[in-house]
Amino acid sequence: MAHLLGGIEAGGTKFVCAVGDEKGQVTQRVKFPTTTPEETMKQVFEFFDQYQVEAIGIGSFGPIDIDPQSATYGYITDTPKLAWKNYNFLGAMKNRYQIPFEWTTDVNVAAYGEHKLGAGVGKNNILYVTVGTGIGVGYISHGQLYRGRSHPEGGHILLHREDGDNFAGVCPYHGDCLEGIAAGPAIEKRTGKKGYELAPTDACWQTEAYYLAQACMTYTLTFSPDMIIFGGGVMKQQQLFPMIRTKFLELMNDYVRVADLDHYIVPVRLGDDAGITGSLLAAADVLEK
Amino acid sequence: MAHLLGGIEAGGTKFVCAVGDEKGQVTQRVKFPTTTPEETMKQVFEFFDQYQVEAIGIGSFGPIDIDPQSATYGYITDTPKLAWKNYNFLGAMKNRYQIPFEWTTDVNVAAYGEHKLGAGVGKNNILYVTVGTGIGVGYISHGQLYRGRSHPEGGHILLHREDGDNFAGVCPYHGDCLEGIAAGPAIEKRTGKKGYELAPTDACWQTEAYYLAQACMTYTLTFSPDMIIFGGGVMKQQQLFPMIRTKFLELMNDYVRVADLDHYIVPVRLGDDAGITGSLLAAADVLEK
Ligand SMILES: Nc1ncnc2c1ncn2[C@@H]1O[C@H](COP(=O)(O)OP(=O)(O)O)[C@@H](O)[C@H]1O
Ligand SMILES: Nc1ncnc2c1ncn2[C@@H]1O[C@H](COP(=O)(O)OP(=O)(O)O)[C@@H](O)[C@H]1O
Ligand SMILES: [Zn+2]
Ligand SMILES: [Zn+2]
Repeated sequence: MAHLLGGIEAGGTKFVCAVGDEKGQVTQRVKFPTTTPEETMKQVFEFFDQYQVEAIGIGSFGPIDIDPQSATYGYITDTPKLAWKNYNFLGAMKNRYQIPFEWTTDVNVAAYGEHKLGAGVGKNNILYVTVGTGIGVGYISHGQLYRGRSHPEGGHILLHREDGDNFAGVCPYHGDCLEGIAAGPAIEKRTGKKGYELAPTDACWQTEAYYLAQACMTYTLTFSPDMIIFGGGVMKQQQLFPMIRTKFLELMNDYVRVADLDHYIVPVRLGDDAGITGSLLAAADVLEK
Repeated sequence: MAHLLGGIEAGGTKFVCAVGDEKGQVTQRVKFPTTTPEETMKQVFEFFDQYQVEAIGIGSFGPIDIDPQSATYGYITDTPKLAWKNYNFLGAMKNRYQIPFEWTTDVNVAAYGEHKLGAGVGKNNILYVTVGTGIGVGYISHGQLYRGRSHPEGGHILLHREDGDNFAGVCPYHGDCLEGIAAGPAIEKRTGKKGYELAPTDACWQTEAYYLAQACMTYTLTFSPDMIIFGGGVMKQQQLFPMIRTKFLELMNDYVRVADLDHYIVPVRLGDDAGITGSLLAAADVLEK
Protein backbone atom coordinates (compact mmCIF):
# COMPACT_ATOMS: atom_id res chain seq x y z
CA MET A 1 0.00 0.00 0.00
CA ALA A 2 1.30 3.45 -0.87
CA HIS A 3 2.34 5.64 2.03
CA LEU A 4 2.60 9.40 1.89
CA LEU A 5 6.12 10.28 2.94
CA GLY A 6 8.15 13.44 3.33
CA GLY A 7 11.76 14.21 2.55
CA ILE A 8 14.02 17.17 3.28
CA GLU A 9 17.38 17.68 1.68
CA ALA A 10 18.73 20.54 3.73
CA GLY A 11 21.85 21.81 1.98
CA GLY A 12 24.00 24.74 3.02
CA THR A 13 22.91 26.61 -0.11
CA LYS A 14 19.34 25.44 -0.65
CA PHE A 15 16.58 23.34 0.87
CA VAL A 16 14.53 20.83 -1.09
CA CYS A 17 11.30 19.54 0.48
CA ALA A 18 9.24 16.83 -1.14
CA VAL A 19 6.38 14.44 -0.62
CA GLY A 20 6.29 11.10 -2.33
CA ASP A 21 6.11 7.39 -1.77
CA GLU A 22 8.20 4.51 -0.46
CA LYS A 23 9.53 3.86 -3.96
CA GLY A 24 11.24 7.24 -3.85
CA GLN A 25 8.77 8.76 -6.35
CA VAL A 26 8.38 12.48 -5.72
CA THR A 27 4.87 13.85 -6.26
CA GLN A 28 5.35 17.40 -4.94
CA ARG A 29 8.47 19.39 -4.32
CA VAL A 30 9.65 22.90 -3.39
CA LYS A 31 13.09 24.45 -3.34
CA PHE A 32 14.23 27.62 -1.56
CA PRO A 33 17.52 29.16 -0.44
CA THR A 34 18.98 28.38 2.98
CA THR A 35 18.86 31.69 4.87
CA THR A 36 18.10 31.82 8.60
CA PRO A 37 16.35 29.08 10.58
CA GLU A 38 13.36 31.42 11.16
CA GLU A 39 12.80 32.16 7.48
CA THR A 40 13.75 28.80 6.11
CA MET A 41 11.83 26.69 8.61
CA LYS A 42 8.74 28.82 8.00
CA GLN A 43 8.90 27.67 4.38
CA VAL A 44 9.46 24.07 5.42
CA PHE A 45 6.36 24.16 7.64
CA GLU A 46 4.25 25.88 4.98
CA PHE A 47 5.07 23.07 2.63
CA PHE A 48 4.50 20.09 4.93
CA ASP A 49 1.40 21.63 6.58
CA GLN A 50 -0.37 20.90 3.30
CA TYR A 51 0.12 17.13 3.50
CA GLN A 52 -0.54 14.33 5.96
CA VAL A 53 2.83 12.65 5.64
CA GLU A 54 3.40 9.59 7.81
CA ALA A 55 7.15 10.00 8.28
CA ILE A 56 9.87 12.41 7.17
CA GLY A 57 13.47 11.67 6.24
CA ILE A 58 15.80 14.60 6.88
CA GLY A 59 19.23 14.83 5.31
CA SER A 60 20.89 17.93 6.69
CA PHE A 61 24.12 19.83 6.11
CA GLY A 62 26.34 19.57 9.14
CA PRO A 63 28.15 18.67 11.20
CA ILE A 64 25.03 17.46 13.00
CA ASP A 65 24.45 15.52 16.20
CA ILE A 66 23.10 12.04 15.40
CA ASP A 67 23.68 10.43 18.79
CA PRO A 68 20.26 9.69 20.33
CA GLN A 69 21.90 9.65 23.80
CA SER A 70 23.23 13.17 23.42
CA ALA A 71 21.60 16.28 24.93
CA THR A 72 21.97 18.01 21.56
CA TYR A 73 20.66 15.11 19.43
CA GLY A 74 18.98 16.56 16.36
CA TYR A 75 21.00 19.79 16.37
CA ILE A 76 23.15 21.25 13.66
CA THR A 77 26.37 21.76 15.63
CA ASP A 78 29.55 23.45 14.36
CA THR A 79 28.58 24.85 11.00
CA PRO A 80 30.30 27.94 9.58
CA LYS A 81 26.72 29.09 8.67
CA LEU A 82 26.44 30.88 12.00
CA ALA A 83 22.66 31.40 12.05
CA TRP A 84 22.31 27.61 12.09
CA LYS A 85 24.95 26.86 14.67
CA ASN A 86 23.44 24.92 17.58
CA TYR A 87 20.02 24.95 15.93
CA ASN A 88 17.67 22.17 17.06
CA PHE A 89 16.46 21.22 13.60
CA LEU A 90 14.97 17.84 14.46
CA GLY A 91 13.38 19.29 17.61
CA ALA A 92 11.62 21.98 15.60
CA MET A 93 10.29 19.36 13.19
CA LYS A 94 9.15 16.99 15.94
CA ASN A 95 7.43 19.87 17.67
CA ARG A 96 5.41 20.58 14.57
CA TYR A 97 4.71 17.03 13.39
CA GLN A 98 4.19 14.07 15.74
CA ILE A 99 5.45 11.44 13.32
CA PRO A 100 8.61 9.32 12.98
CA PHE A 101 11.74 10.95 11.52
CA GLU A 102 15.02 9.80 10.05
CA TRP A 103 17.77 12.27 10.97
CA THR A 104 21.03 12.02 9.06
CA THR A 105 23.32 14.03 6.80
CA ASP A 106 22.53 15.37 3.32
CA VAL A 107 25.29 13.20 1.88
CA ASN A 108 24.07 10.10 3.69
CA VAL A 109 20.62 10.38 2.11
CA ALA A 110 22.22 10.90 -1.29
CA ALA A 111 24.32 7.78 -0.69
CA TYR A 112 21.15 5.93 0.30
CA GLY A 113 19.28 7.09 -2.80
CA GLU A 114 22.11 5.89 -5.02
CA HIS A 115 22.31 2.60 -3.11
CA LYS A 116 18.60 1.86 -3.53
CA LEU A 117 17.84 3.32 -6.96
CA GLY A 118 20.99 4.74 -8.53
CA ALA A 119 24.53 3.71 -9.45
CA GLY A 120 24.90 1.58 -6.32
CA VAL A 121 22.01 -0.84 -6.80
CA GLY A 122 23.09 -4.36 -5.81
CA LYS A 123 26.06 -3.16 -3.74
CA ASN A 124 25.90 -2.98 0.03
CA ASN A 125 28.76 -0.63 0.84
CA ILE A 126 28.42 2.65 -1.00
CA LEU A 127 30.58 5.67 -0.50
CA TYR A 128 29.10 8.89 -1.89
CA VAL A 129 31.18 12.04 -2.32
CA THR A 130 29.75 15.38 -3.34
CA VAL A 131 32.17 17.95 -4.72
CA GLY A 132 30.38 21.29 -4.81
CA THR A 133 30.55 24.34 -2.56
CA GLY A 134 32.05 21.95 -0.04
CA ILE A 135 33.06 18.29 -0.09
CA GLY A 136 30.85 15.88 1.80
CA VAL A 137 31.06 12.15 2.27
CA GLY A 138 28.12 9.83 2.95
CA TYR A 139 28.39 6.11 3.56
CA ILE A 140 26.06 3.15 3.39
CA SER A 141 27.48 0.16 5.24
CA HIS A 142 25.78 -3.22 4.80
CA GLY A 143 22.79 -1.41 3.36
CA GLN A 144 22.40 0.95 6.34
CA LEU A 145 23.14 4.63 6.89
CA TYR A 146 26.57 4.47 8.47
CA ARG A 147 27.11 5.94 11.89
CA GLY A 148 29.98 5.70 14.32
CA ARG A 149 30.26 8.08 17.27
CA SER A 150 28.97 10.49 14.65
CA HIS A 151 28.76 10.67 10.86
CA PRO A 152 31.72 10.78 8.45
CA GLU A 153 33.21 14.18 7.66
CA GLY A 154 35.53 12.82 5.02
CA GLY A 155 35.69 16.06 3.05
CA HIS A 156 38.17 17.49 5.53
CA ILE A 157 40.94 14.90 5.39
CA LEU A 158 44.48 16.12 4.81
CA LEU A 159 46.31 15.03 1.70
CA HIS A 160 49.73 14.58 0.24
CA ARG A 161 50.26 17.77 -1.73
CA GLU A 162 51.04 17.43 -5.39
CA ASP A 163 54.64 18.30 -6.27
CA GLY A 164 54.86 22.02 -6.97
CA ASP A 165 51.31 22.83 -5.83
CA ASN A 166 51.58 25.45 -3.10
CA PHE A 167 48.00 26.69 -3.10
CA ALA A 168 47.20 27.51 0.54
CA GLY A 169 43.60 26.27 0.43
CA VAL A 170 40.40 27.92 1.54
CA CYS A 171 38.95 25.75 4.32
CA PRO A 172 38.31 28.08 7.27
CA TYR A 173 39.25 25.26 9.65
CA HIS A 174 42.14 23.48 7.96
CA GLY A 175 43.35 25.56 5.03
CA ASP A 176 44.50 22.89 2.63
CA CYS A 177 42.34 19.91 3.56
CA LEU A 178 40.58 18.14 0.65
CA GLU A 179 37.65 20.58 0.68
CA GLY A 180 40.07 23.48 1.01
CA ILE A 181 41.96 22.57 -2.17
CA ALA A 182 39.41 20.73 -4.31
CA ALA A 183 35.84 22.02 -3.79
CA GLY A 184 34.31 24.58 -6.16
CA PRO A 185 35.50 27.67 -4.26
CA ALA A 186 39.06 26.31 -4.22
CA ILE A 187 38.99 25.88 -8.00
CA GLU A 188 37.74 29.44 -8.31
CA LYS A 189 40.41 30.84 -5.99
CA ARG A 190 43.12 28.84 -7.70
CA THR A 191 42.23 29.73 -11.29
CA GLY A 192 40.28 32.99 -11.00
CA LYS A 193 37.38 31.31 -12.81
CA LYS A 194 34.33 29.28 -11.84
CA GLY A 195 34.69 25.59 -12.59
CA TYR A 196 32.13 25.70 -15.40
CA GLU A 197 34.04 28.54 -17.11
CA LEU A 198 37.20 26.47 -17.47
CA ALA A 199 38.00 24.38 -20.56
CA PRO A 200 37.83 20.61 -20.00
CA THR A 201 41.50 20.54 -21.04
CA ASP A 202 42.57 23.11 -18.44
CA ALA A 203 45.57 21.88 -16.42
CA CYS A 204 43.68 22.50 -13.17
CA TRP A 205 41.61 19.35 -13.78
CA GLN A 206 44.76 17.24 -13.55
CA THR A 207 45.41 18.64 -10.10
CA GLU A 208 41.75 18.20 -9.17
CA ALA A 209 41.83 14.58 -10.32
CA TYR A 210 45.03 13.92 -8.38
CA TYR A 211 43.44 15.05 -5.11
CA LEU A 212 40.17 13.25 -5.72
CA ALA A 213 42.06 10.07 -6.64
CA GLN A 214 43.98 10.35 -3.40
CA ALA A 215 40.73 10.80 -1.50
CA CYS A 216 39.46 7.61 -3.21
CA MET A 217 42.61 5.88 -2.00
CA THR A 218 41.99 6.98 1.58
CA TYR A 219 38.33 5.91 1.48
CA THR A 220 39.30 2.58 -0.07
CA LEU A 221 41.92 1.90 2.61
CA THR A 222 39.59 2.88 5.45
CA PHE A 223 35.95 2.01 4.67
CA SER A 224 36.74 -0.46 1.88
CA PRO A 225 33.49 0.29 0.02
CA ASP A 226 32.11 -1.64 -2.94
CA MET A 227 31.84 1.55 -4.96
CA ILE A 228 32.67 5.27 -4.81
CA ILE A 229 30.04 7.52 -6.35
CA PHE A 230 30.76 11.17 -7.10
CA GLY A 231 28.12 13.90 -7.35
CA GLY A 232 27.94 17.68 -6.95
CA GLY A 233 28.52 20.59 -9.32
CA VAL A 234 32.23 20.09 -9.90
CA MET A 235 31.72 16.46 -10.94
CA LYS A 236 29.69 17.60 -13.94
CA GLN A 237 33.15 17.78 -15.50
CA GLN A 238 32.91 14.26 -16.90
CA GLN A 239 36.53 14.28 -18.07
CA LEU A 240 37.50 13.97 -14.40
CA PHE A 241 36.36 10.34 -14.12
CA PRO A 242 38.95 8.64 -16.36
CA MET A 243 41.61 10.94 -14.92
CA ILE A 244 40.71 10.01 -11.34
CA ARG A 245 40.72 6.30 -12.19
CA THR A 246 44.15 6.47 -13.81
CA LYS A 247 45.67 8.40 -10.91
CA PHE A 248 43.99 6.12 -8.37
CA LEU A 249 45.64 3.09 -10.00
CA GLU A 250 49.03 4.80 -9.94
CA LEU A 251 48.68 5.83 -6.30
CA MET A 252 47.49 2.42 -5.09
CA ASN A 253 50.28 0.76 -7.07
CA ASP A 254 48.62 -2.66 -6.92
CA TYR A 255 48.30 -2.67 -3.15
CA VAL A 256 44.70 -3.83 -2.63
CA ARG A 257 43.23 -4.38 -6.07
CA VAL A 258 39.83 -3.24 -7.19
CA ALA A 259 38.17 -5.63 -9.59
CA ASP A 260 36.50 -3.35 -12.09
CA LEU A 261 37.72 0.21 -11.80
CA ASP A 262 35.27 1.65 -14.34
CA HIS A 263 32.47 0.47 -12.07
CA TYR A 264 34.27 1.36 -8.86
CA ILE A 265 34.68 5.13 -9.30
CA VAL A 266 31.49 6.33 -10.96
CA PRO A 267 29.23 9.37 -11.40
CA VAL A 268 25.98 9.74 -9.52
CA ARG A 269 23.08 8.25 -11.48
CA LEU A 270 20.13 10.05 -9.92
CA GLY A 271 21.88 13.39 -10.44
CA ASP A 272 20.53 16.21 -8.30
CA ASP A 273 17.67 13.93 -7.15
CA ALA A 274 19.87 11.50 -5.23
CA GLY A 275 19.40 13.34 -1.93
CA ILE A 276 15.67 13.92 -2.00
CA THR A 277 15.04 10.39 -3.27
CA GLY A 278 17.13 8.99 -0.46
CA SER A 279 15.24 11.10 2.09
CA LEU A 280 11.93 9.57 1.03
CA LEU A 281 13.38 6.05 1.11
CA ALA A 282 14.82 6.71 4.58
CA ALA A 283 11.38 7.94 5.71
CA ALA A 284 9.89 4.70 4.43
CA ASP A 285 12.40 2.74 6.53
CA VAL A 286 11.57 4.49 9.82
CA LEU A 287 7.90 3.83 9.15
CA GLU A 288 8.62 0.13 8.89
CA LYS A 289 10.47 -0.01 12.20
CA MET B 1 29.69 -24.04 30.37
CA ALA B 2 33.32 -23.60 29.41
CA HIS B 3 34.23 -24.29 25.81
CA LEU B 4 37.70 -25.17 24.58
CA LEU B 5 38.58 -22.63 21.91
CA GLY B 6 41.54 -21.92 19.69
CA GLY B 7 43.12 -18.67 18.56
CA ILE B 8 45.79 -17.82 16.03
CA GLU B 9 47.45 -14.45 15.80
CA ALA B 10 49.34 -14.79 12.55
CA GLY B 11 51.67 -11.81 12.28
CA GLY B 12 54.18 -11.12 9.56
CA THR B 13 57.01 -11.67 12.05
CA LYS B 14 55.65 -14.32 14.39
CA PHE B 15 52.71 -16.64 14.95
CA VAL B 16 50.98 -17.07 18.31
CA CYS B 17 48.67 -20.06 18.76
CA ALA B 18 46.62 -20.53 21.90
CA VAL B 19 43.83 -22.52 23.44
CA GLY B 20 41.56 -20.99 26.02
CA ASP B 21 37.97 -20.21 26.84
CA GLU B 22 35.16 -17.89 25.81
CA LYS B 23 36.27 -15.35 28.42
CA GLY B 24 39.50 -14.90 26.49
CA GLN B 25 41.54 -16.75 29.14
CA VAL B 26 44.54 -18.45 27.57
CA THR B 27 45.45 -21.84 29.04
CA GLN B 28 48.16 -22.94 26.58
CA ARG B 29 50.16 -20.98 24.07
CA VAL B 30 53.06 -21.30 21.66
CA LYS B 31 54.95 -18.72 19.65
CA PHE B 32 57.20 -19.25 16.62
CA PRO B 33 58.60 -17.14 13.78
CA THR B 34 56.69 -16.75 10.52
CA THR B 35 58.84 -18.48 7.92
CA THR B 36 57.26 -20.43 5.02
CA PRO B 37 53.72 -21.81 4.97
CA GLU B 38 55.11 -25.37 4.99
CA GLU B 39 57.23 -24.90 8.10
CA THR B 40 54.95 -22.56 9.96
CA MET B 41 51.72 -24.46 9.34
CA LYS B 42 53.38 -27.66 10.47
CA GLN B 43 53.93 -26.00 13.84
CA VAL B 44 50.35 -24.72 13.90
CA PHE B 45 49.03 -28.23 13.29
CA GLU B 46 51.36 -29.79 15.87
CA PHE B 47 49.98 -27.42 18.44
CA PHE B 48 46.26 -27.78 17.69
CA ASP B 49 46.46 -31.53 17.10
CA GLN B 50 46.91 -31.83 20.87
CA TYR B 51 43.55 -30.31 21.73
CA GLN B 52 39.91 -30.83 20.87
CA VAL B 53 39.05 -27.18 20.26
CA GLU B 54 35.48 -26.45 19.17
CA ALA B 55 36.24 -23.38 17.05
CA ILE B 56 39.27 -21.33 16.05
CA GLY B 57 39.54 -17.59 15.56
CA ILE B 58 42.25 -16.61 13.08
CA GLY B 59 43.63 -13.10 12.87
CA SER B 60 46.07 -13.02 9.99
CA PHE B 61 48.51 -10.55 8.49
CA GLY B 62 47.35 -9.46 5.07
CA PRO B 63 45.94 -8.25 2.89
CA ILE B 64 43.63 -11.26 3.07
CA ASP B 65 40.46 -12.21 1.23
CA ILE B 66 37.49 -12.08 3.63
CA ASP B 67 34.70 -12.18 1.04
CA PRO B 68 32.87 -15.51 1.43
CA GLN B 69 31.62 -15.17 -2.18
CA SER B 70 35.12 -14.94 -3.58
CA ALA B 71 37.02 -17.83 -5.18
CA THR B 72 40.04 -16.94 -3.06
CA TYR B 73 38.15 -16.55 0.24
CA GLY B 74 40.48 -17.46 3.08
CA TYR B 75 43.66 -16.66 1.15
CA ILE B 76 46.44 -14.30 2.04
CA THR B 77 46.58 -12.24 -1.14
CA ASP B 78 49.09 -9.49 -1.97
CA THR B 79 51.63 -9.68 0.83
CA PRO B 80 55.26 -8.64 0.30
CA LYS B 81 56.10 -11.89 2.20
CA LEU B 82 56.27 -13.79 -1.06
CA ALA B 83 56.13 -17.34 0.32
CA TRP B 84 52.66 -16.51 1.68
CA LYS B 85 51.32 -14.77 -1.38
CA ASN B 86 48.13 -16.49 -2.57
CA TYR B 87 48.34 -19.01 0.26
CA ASN B 88 45.01 -20.60 1.21
CA PHE B 89 45.43 -20.28 4.97
CA LEU B 90 41.82 -20.84 5.96
CA GLY B 91 41.52 -23.71 3.49
CA ALA B 92 44.52 -25.47 5.07
CA MET B 93 43.00 -25.05 8.52
CA LYS B 94 39.56 -26.26 7.44
CA ASN B 95 41.13 -29.24 5.79
CA ARG B 96 42.77 -30.27 9.03
CA TYR B 97 39.99 -29.41 11.48
CA GLN B 98 36.27 -29.73 10.69
CA ILE B 99 35.13 -27.01 13.06
CA PRO B 100 33.87 -23.41 12.67
CA PHE B 101 36.40 -20.62 12.05
CA GLU B 102 36.50 -16.87 12.28
CA TRP B 103 38.74 -15.47 9.55
CA THR B 104 39.83 -11.86 9.86
CA THR B 105 42.93 -9.70 10.15
CA ASP B 106 45.46 -9.68 12.98
CA VAL B 107 44.56 -6.07 13.75
CA ASN B 108 40.83 -6.81 13.74
CA VAL B 109 41.22 -9.46 16.44
CA ALA B 110 43.37 -7.07 18.48
CA ALA B 111 40.65 -4.43 18.12
CA TYR B 112 38.10 -7.00 19.21
CA GLY B 113 40.14 -8.03 22.25
CA GLU B 114 40.45 -4.39 23.33
CA HIS B 115 36.74 -3.81 22.70
CA LYS B 116 35.69 -6.76 24.86
CA LEU B 117 38.31 -6.78 27.61
CA GLY B 118 40.72 -3.88 27.15
CA ALA B 119 40.75 -0.10 26.78
CA GLY B 120 37.59 -0.12 24.66
CA VAL B 121 35.17 -1.82 27.06
CA GLY B 122 31.79 -0.08 26.95
CA LYS B 123 32.44 1.52 23.55
CA ASN B 124 30.98 0.09 20.37
CA ASN B 125 33.17 1.64 17.69
CA ILE B 126 36.82 0.92 18.32
CA LEU B 127 39.64 1.76 15.99
CA TYR B 128 42.88 -0.10 16.73
CA VAL B 129 46.19 0.93 15.18
CA THR B 130 49.39 -1.05 15.55
CA VAL B 131 52.65 0.76 14.86
CA GLY B 132 55.38 -1.83 14.63
CA THR B 133 57.19 -3.35 11.66
CA GLY B 134 54.22 -2.08 9.66
CA ILE B 135 51.14 -0.05 10.47
CA GLY B 136 47.84 -1.90 10.59
CA VAL B 137 44.33 -0.71 11.34
CA GLY B 138 41.51 -2.83 12.75
CA TYR B 139 38.00 -1.65 13.36
CA ILE B 140 35.06 -2.77 15.45
CA SER B 141 31.81 -1.17 14.27
CA HIS B 142 28.73 -1.51 16.45
CA GLY B 143 30.48 -4.26 18.35
CA GLN B 144 31.27 -6.33 15.23
CA LEU B 145 34.45 -6.97 13.24
CA TYR B 146 34.16 -4.37 10.50
CA ARG B 147 34.11 -5.47 6.92
CA GLY B 148 33.30 -3.63 3.72
CA ARG B 149 34.23 -5.08 0.34
CA SER B 150 37.29 -6.12 2.30
CA HIS B 151 39.03 -5.11 5.52
CA PRO B 152 40.62 -1.72 6.27
CA GLU B 153 44.21 -1.18 5.19
CA GLY B 154 44.47 2.19 6.88
CA GLY B 155 48.20 1.98 7.45
CA HIS B 156 48.82 2.92 3.82
CA ILE B 157 47.00 6.25 3.61
CA LEU B 158 48.88 9.21 2.19
CA LEU B 159 49.49 12.21 4.43
CA HIS B 160 50.25 15.86 4.35
CA ARG B 161 54.01 16.01 4.75
CA GLU B 162 55.37 18.02 7.62
CA ASP B 163 57.09 21.24 6.57
CA GLY B 164 60.72 20.53 5.88
CA ASP B 165 60.42 16.73 6.13
CA ASN B 166 61.64 15.27 2.87
CA PHE B 167 62.21 11.68 3.96
CA ALA B 168 61.29 9.54 0.96
CA GLY B 169 59.67 6.74 2.97
CA VAL B 170 60.17 2.99 2.84
CA CYS B 171 56.84 1.48 1.81
CA PRO B 172 57.59 -0.78 -1.17
CA TYR B 173 54.19 0.14 -2.66
CA HIS B 174 53.75 3.84 -1.86
CA GLY B 175 57.04 5.22 -0.58
CA ASP B 176 55.85 7.86 1.84
CA CYS B 177 52.46 6.53 2.95
CA LEU B 178 51.85 6.47 6.72
CA GLU B 179 53.55 3.09 7.12
CA GLY B 180 56.37 4.26 4.87
CA ILE B 181 57.21 7.25 7.08
CA ALA B 182 56.06 6.25 10.56
CA ALA B 183 56.45 2.49 11.19
CA GLY B 184 59.50 1.11 13.02
CA PRO B 185 61.66 0.58 9.90
CA ALA B 186 60.96 4.18 8.81
CA ILE B 187 62.17 5.49 12.17
CA GLU B 188 65.29 3.37 11.81
CA LYS B 189 65.97 4.56 8.26
CA ARG B 190 65.33 8.17 9.22
CA THR B 191 67.51 8.27 12.34
CA GLY B 192 69.98 5.43 11.84
CA LYS B 193 68.80 3.93 15.15
CA LYS B 194 66.11 1.52 16.28
CA GLY B 195 63.18 3.22 17.98
CA TYR B 196 64.08 1.82 21.39
CA GLU B 197 67.63 3.22 21.11
CA LEU B 198 66.41 6.81 20.74
CA ALA B 199 65.97 9.16 23.69
CA PRO B 200 62.33 10.00 24.53
CA THR B 201 63.27 13.64 23.89
CA ASP B 202 64.63 12.95 20.39
CA ALA B 203 63.15 15.35 17.82
CA CYS B 204 62.04 12.41 15.66
CA TRP B 205 59.17 11.73 18.09
CA GLN B 206 57.68 15.11 17.24
CA THR B 207 57.57 14.13 13.59
CA GLU B 208 56.22 10.69 14.50
CA ALA B 209 53.48 12.27 16.63
CA TYR B 210 52.56 14.68 13.83
CA TYR B 211 51.95 11.85 11.38
CA LEU B 212 50.11 9.67 13.88
CA ALA B 213 47.93 12.65 14.88
CA GLN B 214 47.10 13.22 11.26
CA ALA B 215 46.21 9.57 10.87
CA CYS B 216 43.89 9.97 13.90
CA MET B 217 42.32 12.93 12.11
CA THR B 218 41.69 10.85 8.98
CA TYR B 219 40.23 7.95 10.97
CA THR B 220 38.05 10.35 12.96
CA LEU B 221 36.71 12.03 9.81
CA THR B 222 36.04 8.71 8.07
CA PHE B 223 35.03 5.98 10.57
CA SER B 224 34.12 8.37 13.38
CA PRO B 225 35.09 5.86 16.08
CA ASP B 226 34.39 6.18 19.81
CA MET B 227 38.04 5.62 20.58
CA ILE B 228 41.43 5.16 18.90
CA ILE B 229 43.69 2.60 20.57
CA PHE B 230 47.38 2.37 19.69
CA GLY B 231 49.52 -0.73 20.14
CA GLY B 232 52.71 -2.19 18.63
CA GLY B 233 56.39 -1.81 19.45
CA VAL B 234 56.76 1.86 18.54
CA MET B 235 53.87 2.88 20.81
CA LYS B 236 55.85 1.67 23.83
CA GLN B 237 57.21 5.23 23.63
CA GLN B 238 54.62 6.57 26.05
CA GLN B 239 55.68 10.18 25.51
CA LEU B 240 54.00 9.94 22.10
CA PHE B 241 50.47 9.94 23.52
CA PRO B 242 50.30 13.51 24.89
CA MET B 243 52.14 14.73 21.78
CA ILE B 244 49.66 13.01 19.45
CA ARG B 245 46.71 14.45 21.38
CA THR B 246 48.07 17.99 21.24
CA LYS B 247 48.79 17.81 17.53
CA PHE B 248 45.43 16.17 16.83
CA LEU B 249 43.66 19.11 18.49
CA GLU B 250 45.69 21.59 16.47
CA LEU B 251 45.02 19.78 13.20
CA MET B 252 41.28 19.36 13.79
CA ASN B 253 41.05 23.00 14.83
CA ASP B 254 37.69 22.54 16.54
CA TYR B 255 36.03 21.02 13.48
CA VAL B 256 34.23 18.00 14.95
CA ARG B 257 34.96 17.96 18.65
CA VAL B 258 35.94 14.94 20.66
CA ALA B 259 34.56 14.98 24.18
CA ASP B 260 37.40 13.62 26.24
CA LEU B 261 40.64 13.53 24.33
CA ASP B 262 42.62 11.72 27.03
CA HIS B 263 40.18 8.84 26.69
CA TYR B 264 39.91 9.13 22.92
CA ILE B 265 43.51 8.47 21.89
CA VAL B 266 44.80 5.80 24.24
CA PRO B 267 47.34 2.99 24.57
CA VAL B 268 46.38 -0.66 24.23
CA ARG B 269 45.44 -2.14 27.61
CA LEU B 270 45.94 -5.86 26.93
CA GLY B 271 49.41 -5.15 25.56
CA ASP B 272 50.81 -7.92 23.39
CA ASP B 273 47.86 -10.15 24.37
CA ALA B 274 45.21 -8.07 22.60
CA GLY B 275 45.37 -10.12 19.41
CA ILE B 276 45.36 -13.62 20.85
CA THR B 277 42.64 -12.69 23.36
CA GLY B 278 40.52 -11.29 20.54
CA SER B 279 41.06 -14.48 18.50
CA LEU B 280 39.63 -16.61 21.30
CA LEU B 281 36.67 -14.26 21.76
CA ALA B 282 36.02 -14.31 18.02
CA ALA B 283 36.12 -18.12 18.11
CA ALA B 284 33.52 -18.04 20.89
CA ASP B 285 31.28 -15.88 18.68
CA VAL B 286 31.33 -18.25 15.71
CA LEU B 287 30.48 -21.11 18.02
CA GLU B 288 27.38 -19.24 19.16
CA LYS B 289 26.16 -18.62 15.63
N1 LIG C 1 29.56 22.32 -14.52
C1 LIG C 1 30.37 22.65 -13.53
N2 LIG C 1 31.70 22.46 -13.63
C2 LIG C 1 32.55 22.77 -12.64
N3 LIG C 1 32.15 23.33 -11.48
C3 LIG C 1 30.83 23.54 -11.30
C4 LIG C 1 29.88 23.21 -12.31
N4 LIG C 1 28.64 23.51 -11.83
C5 LIG C 1 28.83 24.02 -10.59
N5 LIG C 1 30.14 24.05 -10.28
C6 LIG C 1 30.73 24.53 -9.02
O1 LIG C 1 30.19 23.72 -7.96
C7 LIG C 1 29.90 24.53 -6.82
C8 LIG C 1 28.43 24.38 -6.46
O2 LIG C 1 28.18 23.04 -6.18
P1 LIG C 1 26.74 22.40 -6.20
O3 LIG C 1 26.92 20.95 -5.95
O4 LIG C 1 26.06 22.78 -7.46
O5 LIG C 1 25.96 23.11 -5.01
P2 LIG C 1 26.11 22.98 -3.41
O6 LIG C 1 27.39 22.31 -3.10
O7 LIG C 1 26.08 24.38 -2.92
O8 LIG C 1 24.91 22.18 -3.02
C9 LIG C 1 30.29 25.95 -7.19
O9 LIG C 1 31.58 26.22 -6.65
C10 LIG C 1 30.33 25.92 -8.70
O10 LIG C 1 31.27 26.86 -9.24
N1 LIG D 1 60.27 0.32 22.87
C1 LIG D 1 60.27 0.61 21.56
N2 LIG D 1 60.36 1.90 21.15
C2 LIG D 1 60.35 2.20 19.84
N3 LIG D 1 60.28 1.31 18.86
C3 LIG D 1 60.21 0.01 19.20
C4 LIG D 1 60.17 -0.40 20.55
N4 LIG D 1 60.06 -1.75 20.57
C5 LIG D 1 60.02 -2.15 19.28
N5 LIG D 1 60.11 -1.09 18.46
C6 LIG D 1 60.09 -1.13 16.99
O1 LIG D 1 58.85 -1.71 16.59
C7 LIG D 1 59.05 -2.59 15.46
C8 LIG D 1 58.54 -3.98 15.83
O2 LIG D 1 57.17 -3.88 16.13
P1 LIG D 1 56.38 -4.95 16.98
O3 LIG D 1 55.00 -4.42 17.16
O4 LIG D 1 57.17 -5.27 18.21
O5 LIG D 1 56.40 -6.26 16.07
P2 LIG D 1 55.62 -6.62 14.70
O6 LIG D 1 55.07 -5.36 14.09
O7 LIG D 1 56.68 -7.24 13.84
O8 LIG D 1 54.56 -7.57 15.14
C9 LIG D 1 60.53 -2.57 15.15
O9 LIG D 1 60.75 -1.69 14.06
C10 LIG D 1 61.17 -2.04 16.44
O10 LIG D 1 62.35 -1.32 16.16
ZN1 LIG E 1 38.66 21.43 6.22
ZN1 LIG F 1 52.13 1.92 1.75
